[in-house]
Amino acid sequence: MTDPNCIFCKIVSGAIPSRKVYEDENCYAFMDIAPFEKGHTLVVPKHHARFLTDLTEATLTQLIMTTQKVAAYILKTMPCDGFNILQNNGECALQTIPHVHFHIIPRWNNKGLQWHSTKAYDSEEEMVEIHKRIIINE
Amino acid sequence: MTDPNCIFCKIVSGAIPSRKVYEDENCYAFMDIAPFEKGHTLVVPKHHARFLTDLTEATLTQLIMTTQKVAAYILKTMPCDGFNILQNNGECALQTIPHVHFHIIPRWNNKGLQWHSTKAYDSEEEMVEIHKRIIINE
Repeated sequence: MTDPNCIFCKIVSGAIPSRKVYEDENCYAFMDIAPFEKGHTLVVPKHHARFLTDLTEATLTQLIMTTQKVAAYILKTMPCDGFNILQNNGECALQTIPHVHFHIIPRWNNKGLQWHSTKAYDSEEEMVEIHKRIIINE
Repeated sequence: MTDPNCIFCKIVSGAIPSRKVYEDENCYAFMDIAPFEKGHTLVVPKHHARFLTDLTEATLTQLIMTTQKVAAYILKTMPCDGFNILQNNGECALQTIPHVHFHIIPRWNNKGLQWHSTKAYDSEEEMVEIHKRIIINE
């Protein structure tokens, strides 16, 4: 199921462009346009749902497996020292787009943690270069 | 596999006491002792691993399904308006215990978000009362 008014459903369908990192039958991963850090990536199910608790077992399982795969690749290719997985449910929890999504936020030793959007990339060129590094070409 | 020096492995085995919220064959959920909010609960796999990316498909699938189940119950019984799922990998990402865990952090409309430990409960009695509310008795 998709929601014709949902921004993430439009990204999945290609109606809104995105910097795709990975795609499989059930999920789509792309660079966050309001990144907390370099390499910040979102993973969404293609099926539209608002809360984590709204997902079927099959969709949730596919989503976490894809999130793990993308996180492992980012860890290796950025590379980074660790990462946060964040998933917000409800406006009260800072969910801005009402379509389930996992944030993968790369982190580095000896660097403070930002929990909000920053000017993470020094330039458009750097963003493009990092996109090339973390995109999964299979 | 368990790690004899790991605090969460000791909590799972009962060697260290905890306020258990739920337990099944593969996972264990308990109230966080350094809560960001009332009802803040952790879900851990019984198998010891450090990063999300270290988990097998079976363990990861069991862990996310249990996290979903506990979150749905907290959403209903607290009740709360939404929740954050947070999972930290590495000291650089504020992982304090090197055993994979998902935070479930209840959130409410018209209330600011705390991303650190607070004196979330007004009293020991309130904590005990909330524990009774969110514990899953099957």
